[in-house]
Amino acid sequence: MTPKEALPAVLDRIDADLDESLERLFAFLRIQSISTDPAYAEECRKGAQFIADDLKSIGFDADIRPTAGHPIVVAKGPNGQAKDAPRVLYYGHYDVQPVDPLELWEAPPFEPRLATLPDGRKIIVARGACDDKGQVMTFVEACRAFKAVTGSLPLPITVMLEGEEECGSAHLFDFVKQNVAELKQDLALICDTSMWDPQTPMVTTSLRGLVYEEVRLTCADRDLHSGLFGGAAQNPLRVLSRILGALHDDTGRVTIPGFYDGVADLPADIMADLKALNLTAEEFLGGVGLKVPAGEQDRMLIEQIATRPTAEINGIVGGYTGEGAKTVIPGKATAKVSFRLVGAQDPAKISEAFRAFVRARLPEDCTVEFVNYGLAPAIDLPFDNAALGKTRAALADEWNRKAVTVGEGGSIPIVGDFKRVLGMDTIMVGFALDDDRVHSPNEKFDLTSFHKGTRSWARILAALATPG
Amino acid sequence: MTPKEALPAVLDRIDADLDESLERLFAFLRIQSISTDPAYAEECRKGAQFIADDLKSIGFDADIRPTAGHPIVVAKGPNGQAKDAPRVLYYGHYDVQPVDPLELWEAPPFEPRLATLPDGRKIIVARGACDDKGQVMTFVEACRAFKAVTGSLPLPITVMLEGEEECGSAHLFDFVKQNVAELKQDLALICDTSMWDPQTPMVTTSLRGLVYEEVRLTCADRDLHSGLFGGAAQNPLRVLSRILGALHDDTGRVTIPGFYDGVADLPADIMADLKALNLTAEEFLGGVGLKVPAGEQDRMLIEQIATRPTAEINGIVGGYTGEGAKTVIPGKATAKVSFRLVGAQDPAKISEAFRAFVRARLPEDCTVEFVNYGLAPAIDLPFDNAALGKTRAALADEWNRKAVTVGEGGSIPIVGDFKRVLGMDTIMVGFALDDDRVHSPNEKFDLTSFHKGTRSWARILAALATPG
Repeated sequence: MTPKEALPAVLDRIDADLDESLERLFAFLRIQSISTDPAYAEECRKGAQFIADDLKSIGFDADIRPTAGHPIVVAKGPNGQAKDAPRVLYYGHYDVQPVDPLELWEAPPFEPRLATLPDGRKIIVARGACDDKGQVMTFVEACRAFKAVTGSLPLPITVMLEGEEECGSAHLFDFVKQNVAELKQDLALICDTSMWDPQTPMVTTSLRGLVYEEVRLTCADRDLHSGLFGGAAQNPLRVLSRILGALHDDTGRVTIPGFYDGVADLPADIMADLKALNLTAEEFLGGVGLKVPAGEQDRMLIEQIATRPTAEINGIVGGYTGEGAKTVIPGKATAKVSFRLVGAQDPAKISEAFRAFVRARLPEDCTVEFVNYGLAPAIDLPFDNAALGKTRAALADEWNRKAVTVGEGGSIPIVGDFKRVLGMDTIMVGFALDDDRVHSPNEKFDLTSFHKGTRSWARILAALATPG
Repeated sequence: MTPKEALPAVLDRIDADLDESLERLFAFLRIQSISTDPAYAEECRKGAQFIADDLKSIGFDADIRPTAGHPIVVAKGPNGQAKDAPRVLYYGHYDVQPVDPLELWEAPPFEPRLATLPDGRKIIVARGACDDKGQVMTFVEACRAFKAVTGSLPLPITVMLEGEEECGSAHLFDFVKQNVAELKQDLALICDTSMWDPQTPMVTTSLRGLVYEEVRLTCADRDLHSGLFGGAAQNPLRVLSRILGALHDDTGRVTIPGFYDGVADLPADIMADLKALNLTAEEFLGGVGLKVPAGEQDRMLIEQIATRPTAEINGIVGGYTGEGAKTVIPGKATAKVSFRLVGAQDPAKISEAFRAFVRARLPEDCTVEFVNYGLAPAIDLPFDNAALGKTRAALADEWNRKAVTVGEGGSIPIVGDFKRVLGMDTIMVGFALDDDRVHSPNEKFDLTSFHKGTRSWARILAALATPG
């Protein structure tokens, strides 16, 4: 029986097992695995133990690997599947965010419960219900159902679950580098992202890269009085304003020469999909008090936030910034400027082009120092990746809605390492919703997200295991 | 005997009296009249008493007028001089700056002494030696010599000396408004400024005005994550940079429409005088680490700092300004911007023109609030003022060098009130030198400044008293 043939029985099994799968998730959620607070180190160890034991119970060979921080669980499923079945690495995390402010929780954060929203949606409420224990268990429960129905897993699966995602993944990057042979598979899977909306499944196909630069300008060797020196002394705030004010043209396009090198247009079908999403400024910006997309005027809002590069001024400080007036011409001024990159934009080249842009606009009486705080390329899953097509089809089958592919505006650094260090593309599928209160009090995960998320993974695994 | 006829004898008297006039200055300098420190209130009272008594000794009717702060001395000289002799108000101050850091003084600051510089110049060293006790006494000693030689003063003179100049003149402005009848004369005289250089006397003929505005921009109603919102959310630092970066054109000229309304070109002879001064960038900017005048490129450096208006950014703050990187798009950003005004520029119009300039460049998703911290017009002594011509001639006679007229870059607010409230022009003549360490440890006044300053005032008073 191929995985595809087994799928209907697997889905039935998931439905029948829902209550018990919830019990398992609740047991996981009761563990207070707050990674950032050393007082919870033992709880983190328990979290690793719980998920390792659970994976063992469905046939994984699971290890708890110590690090200088919280341990990393590595579990290898049995091999022996069809020869052309891709080997996958599933990555997730068992740690959770702190719970402060505790008084805003309607029930204790580590006593998971089912509740019903006013609109009738059933939800699982607990710290970690969504991020990431609930999402991890959608994948684990799909594996469990396959094991129950077929006696095995549909693919060779390696699971890696870290315990420091919520506090910076300090030990994960070295761990990956030190275990390339074991972790390098054909494809990575992650379940830590969102759906487009409660009806529409989504695959995150790109992550923007980041270049972050600090610009420190110096003119006079001290602060000057603007009465005495005003008019004659170069003012670094004036220099900075002229330079940063020239970063964008009147249409919102970044003016740094070569900035758009490596930025390709999207395939027509993907563009059509994005357009069909019809993301409005009111939906996306209304909640923060804005109305007008501020990016390139000839691009849709969804492109501006997901698939186009940006230049942002993250901070400026210089001169007198207290109450009232001081007639000072400052000697120094500083700005932090960052760039979100897409496609094949080269972070080192962008950094150099920006620095050249600044230097070219520097008057003689002004010197500059630069500090770099980040150089990460964008991550792109090629739209012709076969696994992506299979995943989208599997999601469409489950949700009766075309699965959209959207770029994520921010960066997930480990995905970059999967590509660079392990040579793997990553498919990111998740079932979070915008109202899940991730990182906040009363975090929840829709029961539908959990149940149909599990069914989605069963379909995706079956699809990936099927040749063609 | 007219004042002019008496002048040679008056000058001889000043020379003969130099040692005793120094004794009187030293007695004044021993009084620790530090106005900003309440612990020295009694010393300030003593300072007022000393100068009132001294003025009485040369025929003034001197009063110590209480204020809510330190007292103001008002002394009226006898009338009865030639009918067309202008009545003058002399303004100065008897208070001094604090002496910290005391350990940097080579001798106690209130034990005045004569010293000799390596280049042979004799100097008077004490707190207040120059600012303003030494300068005040040049005027008082000139009066004393006239009184000794002629039995009277050459002009009707009212002296007003305050005790709060070094801490903001909090009570002077109301005092002037409340005593208009008594203080309103034909002309005001002040001795609190500098010479151009040790050989060249100077009359300060203009003071730049000031408009000071704070610009507060708001875009989103909170700080946003640049990964999620970057590209779509308006960034107030970007808006601010574009606006402030457009304040000057490539030649250093301010671009605000109407900004130069009321700015007249200087008379050709004054321009020629300024040009002859040959102020170099190295002289003026070299000491603070700069080389290139940053103002309007078609103006001499001396014009840029003294007779041309400016726009300066005094401070900017917004977004993340700490160590390292934070990928924030701030909701707010603030700048402080000020303008130095000259000639007939109207502060209210400049403020309004600047605000309109900002508003015209504001994208839809950005609101602005303005706060004004200053609206002071420039003060100009008309170059055809007869008293100015007489003063310049008198100074040239004493120093054997043409007296230059230069604008002061900063503001002296009371001079504005003399014009607006009392309807008087002010002639500012002073004998300070650039190395006098005013407000710093080891403050000094050259003996030549004191001696020839006194002789200068005798000549100026004689000239003002002479018709034509």
